[in-house]
Amino acid sequence: MSEPSDKSAPSRTPFFDVRMRGFRDRAEVADVVALLAARLRPLPAEEIDLHEASGRVLAEEISSPVAVPSFDRAAMDGYALRGQETFGAGPYNPLEFRIVGEALPGRPFTQPVGPAEAVRIMTGAPLPERADAVIQVEAAEEQAGILRISEAVPPGRHVGRRGEDIELGTVVLCAGRRLRPQDVGVLASIGTAHVRVIRRPTVALMITGDELLPCGSRPEGYRIVDSNSVMLEALVRRDGGIPLDTQLIADSRPAVEAAVVSARADLLLISGGSSVGKEDHAPRVVAERGELSVHGMALRPASPAGVGFLQDRPIFLLPGNPVSCLCAYDFFAGPALRRLGGGSMDWPYRSCRLPLARKIISAVGRVDYVRVRIRDGQLEPLATSGASILSSTTRADGFVLVPRDSEGVGAGQEVQVFLYD
Amino acid sequence: MSEPSDKSAPSRTPFFDVRMRGFRDRAEVADVVALLAARLRPLPAEEIDLHEASGRVLAEEISSPVAVPSFDRAAMDGYALRGQETFGAGPYNPLEFRIVGEALPGRPFTQPVGPAEAVRIMTGAPLPERADAVIQVEAAEEQAGILRISEAVPPGRHVGRRGEDIELGTVVLCAGRRLRPQDVGVLASIGTAHVRVIRRPTVALMITGDELLPCGSRPEGYRIVDSNSVMLEALVRRDGGIPLDTQLIADSRPAVEAAVVSARADLLLISGGSSVGKEDHAPRVVAERGELSVHGMALRPASPAGVGFLQDRPIFLLPGNPVSCLCAYDFFAGPALRRLGGGSMDWPYRSCRLPLARKIISAVGRVDYVRVRIRDGQLEPLATSGASILSSTTRADGFVLVPRDSEGVGAGQEVQVFLYD
Repeated sequence: MSEPSDKSAPSRTPFFDVRMRGFRDRAEVADVVALLAARLRPLPAEEIDLHEASGRVLAEEISSPVAVPSFDRAAMDGYALRGQETFGAGPYNPLEFRIVGEALPGRPFTQPVGPAEAVRIMTGAPLPERADAVIQVEAAEEQAGILRISEAVPPGRHVGRRGEDIELGTVVLCAGRRLRPQDVGVLASIGTAHVRVIRRPTVALMITGDELLPCGSRPEGYRIVDSNSVMLEALVRRDGGIPLDTQLIADSRPAVEAAVVSARADLLLISGGSSVGKEDHAPRVVAERGELSVHGMALRPASPAGVGFLQDRPIFLLPGNPVSCLCAYDFFAGPALRRLGGGSMDWPYRSCRLPLARKIISAVGRVDYVRVRIRDGQLEPLATSGASILSSTTRADGFVLVPRDSEGVGAGQEVQVFLYD
Repeated sequence: MSEPSDKSAPSRTPFFDVRMRGFRDRAEVADVVALLAARLRPLPAEEIDLHEASGRVLAEEISSPVAVPSFDRAAMDGYALRGQETFGAGPYNPLEFRIVGEALPGRPFTQPVGPAEAVRIMTGAPLPERADAVIQVEAAEEQAGILRISEAVPPGRHVGRRGEDIELGTVVLCAGRRLRPQDVGVLASIGTAHVRVIRRPTVALMITGDELLPCGSRPEGYRIVDSNSVMLEALVRRDGGIPLDTQLIADSRPAVEAAVVSARADLLLISGGSSVGKEDHAPRVVAERGELSVHGMALRPASPAGVGFLQDRPIFLLPGNPVSCLCAYDFFAGPALRRLGGGSMDWPYRSCRLPLARKIISAVGRVDYVRVRIRDGQLEPLATSGASILSSTTRADGFVLVPRDSEGVGAGQEVQVFLYD
C-alpha cells in the first residue's frame, strides 16, 4: 500500500489557461502514475452470488467453516478393506475377501467391515467403519461375491482423509485475490453461496467534438465518426469497469460543464477538448469545479492529456486523436480504473524482449509510445507516428516505450515490447 | 487449417464396458487434441452491434468503403498558412500574417487562404483551400489579428492527408481476427455499425453425482457440495462460451441418457460418472447414442476422461474429482470450445521458464499435471497430488507438465510453467 494521499497530492495551483498559448511544462509520466497510486483506493465491497464471482477481487479473507471432505473417503473405484489383511498377497499368493456390500458417494455402507471382508466402493464414497484402505478395481478380481487380490495395499492407500482438501478453520483465500475459476469451486465446496468482492467501478464517457457523428454513422463531408467511445467502452470493460451511457457533447463550455458536473460515475473520461485549442474547455471546467492536478504530459502522442479530481473521483482528459486517446487511457485511466476495482496498476499486456529491426529516434524529456510489428522475431517500428492514425494500432502487434532520458534505440538492440493481444 | 475430418477420425470400435474392469489402454493426450483439431470447425457467423464486438472473432475480411479522413486536416492546434511563405522566418526575422478566419473540426473555413494570410485552426479541422501547412500554437504569437512567426514550416507540416489513416478500399481487418478495443474504433471510423463475428458456442453443463448438494448449500453428512459447475461455468466464460442452465443429474442410466439426448448446446460437458465405477453411465450413453471416440487418457490426474460426438457436437466426459475435472477441461474441452468460437487451441495461460526447487517424479507413459508454487524464483511442486484436492490449484501459482516419455524432472532443472493468473 502507498502513503496516505495528502502527502503526495500536488498543491493546488492557480489555473493557467493554456488555450492558444501552449503548455508551460509537462508532467512526467511516472509522477502522474505515482499521484494516482497515492490518491486512489479500491472501492467498497459488495456481496454477489458465487456464480458471478470468477474474475472479481475478493474483499475479505475467507476461512473454511467446515472440513472438506468431512469424512474419510475412497480416492479410487475399487474395494474397501483392512490394509493389514492384504499383507502377503502376491501373484502366487492371491488372497480372498468376502464382499459384504457396496458404498457409493452419498450412499455409505453403514456397518463395520469385519475380518476377511471387503466392500465394493466408488471414488468419493465414505470409507466404511474399520476399513482403512482401498484396492483399485484394476488390481482385483470379483467373482460370485468373492474378491481375489494379488497385491498388498497398506492402510491409508487410496483413502482421502477428512479435511485432506481443506481443514476446518484454514484460511482458504486472502482479501485482494482475483478469483480464479478453481477458487469459486473451492468456495462452493466449503458452502459459500455469496461472496464479498470489490465493487466494479462505473465509468462515465463524455465525448466532445462538434465534428463527430455518432458511432454507427457513415462519415460525411467534413464530419468524422466518433470512434473513441466504442474503443473506450471496450477498454473499460477489459479493465473491469462498467461503462455507463456514453454522451456526445458539444464543444461549448456550458455543455462540457453540465456533463462533467452531472456525471455520477466512479471515474470520468472526457475525450477531446483536452488540449490548448480554442474549444478546449475541459481543463478549465475541471480546474474550476474540482482539481486539475496535471495538464500536459511528457509523453508522445498523448501530451495534451490531463488528470483531475471531482470530489475525489478521478477524471481523465483524453486527447480526441484516437491514438493519443488510447495511449492516455492505457497510461493513466486504465491503471486508475483497475486500482478502484482492487486490481493491479501494471500494464495489462503481456510483454517480451525482442531486437529492433530499425532504430527508433526519440527526444529526451518525453516518453515515446512507438507502435511496432513483429517480423521474423524482430520489431519493426511502424513508419507513421501520427496521433490520428488509429489503424497503426491495428497493424501493430504491440508497442515499445522509449524512456524520457533516451534519444532513441539503435537497430539490433533488444527492448521490451508490450503485446496488444 | 487441418485436414478434413474423416482422415484423422478414429474408426468407430465396438464399445468396451470398462465398468469395474478398468481401462484397456489410454489415449495419448496429443492424439486427442489432434483429433479435436481435425474434427472441429468454427461455428457460423452472426451479426452483432459494433459496441459488443470487442473480444469477438471477426468472420469476414473488412475493407474500407471510405477514406479516413476524407479531407486534409490539421494535425495540431495552430495556424494554417502556405508553407512556402514561412521560409526565411527566424528569431531575428519574424514574419507576419494576417489572420483571416478560423477553422474548427466540423466547421471549416470556406474561403481560400491568400498570400500573407493565415487561418486559426484546431486539430482535426479541415485545412482551408490553398493552405498547406500548420504552424503550432507554441511556435507563433497572435496579437490584434496579426500572427507573428519566428520559425519556418515546410508545406505538409502538421497536416493529416486525406486517407492518411485508412485509404479507400484498403483491407482494414482480416477474418479470424480477435477484435481489440482499437479495432472496433477503426471499424467505427469507417462507418461500421454492425459486424459479422463467429457465434459464441453454447455449453450444456451436466453434473452427476448422487452425493452432491447444489452449489450454494452447506456440506452435510456424507454429502458434499457440487463445486465443478461453478468452476466450469467460469472456465467456459473465460474461453468465450455461454454456459446454459447447469443441471444436477442423478447417477442413473436413464437420467444421464435423458440429459445427454435433450441437451441443445454446441458443446456438452458431463462432470462425474466418467470412469470405471459401477455408476459411471456416461461413457456407455455416449457410445450408444453417438460416438465415444476416446475414453481413458494417458494423463494424471485426468485419466478417467472421455471425448465423443453427438451429431457432430463434441461431448466431454470430465472426471468428478475437481482437480481432474479442471485438468480434463483445460486439456480437451477448453481448446475445443475456443476452436468452435474461432479462437486458438493453445493454452490460455501465460508461461515462463523457471528452475525446479525439488525434483518431480513421474511415470513413463503418461503426462503429469503438477501444481507448483513460485518461491524465490523457483518452482516448488505442491506436496499433494490428489485429484480431489481442489485447494491445491488455489494454493498453486500454476502447473508444470511432465511429458509422457519422462520419468520426472530433477531439482534445479529449468521447466516451462503455466501461470493460473
